[in-house]
Amino acid sequence: MTVKQALDLRDYIRDIPDFPKPGIVFKDITPLLADGSAFCTSVSELACHVPQDIDAIVGIESRGFLFGAGLAQQLCMGLVPVRKPGKLPADVHAIEYELEYGVDRLEIHRDALSEGHKVVIVDDLLATGGTVRATINLVQQLGAEVVACLFVVELLALGGRQRISEVPVHSLITYE
Amino acid sequence: MTVKQALDLRDYIRDIPDFPKPGIVFKDITPLLADGSAFCTSVSELACHVPQDIDAIVGIESRGFLFGAGLAQQLCMGLVPVRKPGKLPADVHAIEYELEYGVDRLEIHRDALSEGHKVVIVDDLLATGGTVRATINLVQQLGAEVVACLFVVELLALGGRQRISEVPVHSLITYE
Repeated sequence: MTVKQALDLRDYIRDIPDFPKPGIVFKDITPLLADGSAFCTSVSELACHVPQDIDAIVGIESRGFLFGAGLAQQLCMGLVPVRKPGKLPADVHAIEYELEYGVDRLEIHRDALSEGHKVVIVDDLLATGGTVRATINLVQQLGAEVVACLFVVELLALGGRQRISEVPVHSLITYE
Repeated sequence: MTVKQALDLRDYIRDIPDFPKPGIVFKDITPLLADGSAFCTSVSELACHVPQDIDAIVGIESRGFLFGAGLAQQLCMGLVPVRKPGKLPADVHAIEYELEYGVDRLEIHRDALSEGHKVVIVDDLLATGGTVRATINLVQQLGAEVVACLFVVELLALGGRQRISEVPVHSLITYE
């Protein structure tokens, strides 16, 4: 299809200055989401980096749910949500991790993954890598293995990739 | 496929007593998400209720993102996120709505929809209908039309359907 070949995902990411705080330029993925061809192309491109024989996609709340669920649908695979505190209703395993100021916490259902399961983690953005590092640890603490981490956008200058260097990382769009 | 015909989505919803507070029995959709066949079946069944010629899927944060994105991928359609306050980076239109105790707020990007656009709203659960009622109003205030509201689970006793009676509603699983 000519349309897909001509489509450059970068055209669907827009810069929003001073969000979430002054001096930060936020990479807004909503134009990509809003365009059916761009969204489906992004999911299909992510799917190319999903190894055979994995057991689940792990999606990180909230924007990781968008691409994680698209990918789960594309591959007809199960999706395991990693959520903010207090959102998952059953017994959870939790991890705390440091933010620039303060501490954040992520949770996963204890029965969501078992020893030996292989998963791929999906999020929209790789920046400093704090959230995905915590998610990898969370998955590993349940005995499962992270075989790849997939992102739509990666901000190379923030060095997130170095924090998760033991796992293959694929990003569709990178910015210096 | 025999597997899909034999699959009863109800088998993938589990009751969690006393969540989020004592006396409430929470319908947990994570077993459905975790099973690739069940998730894909749910998305395909939702897709059967999407009218022709709509312009976008509107997904409500956060669990609505899971099914909304699956549906967007299935139909190769754009997805417009409706989010909690302060999450969307560009200019937003907001609506406040009453909760049992207090007030909540939802936001949509002002440029996400235009006059005459037709959309389908997707969420995981129809309970009292407060969130979807607010989302319909939000979409209508941008001049767009809601042609259907789709849910995976509906709790009939809570009367949500009556609060959005002007819009066709489809739910995959209902509980009395």
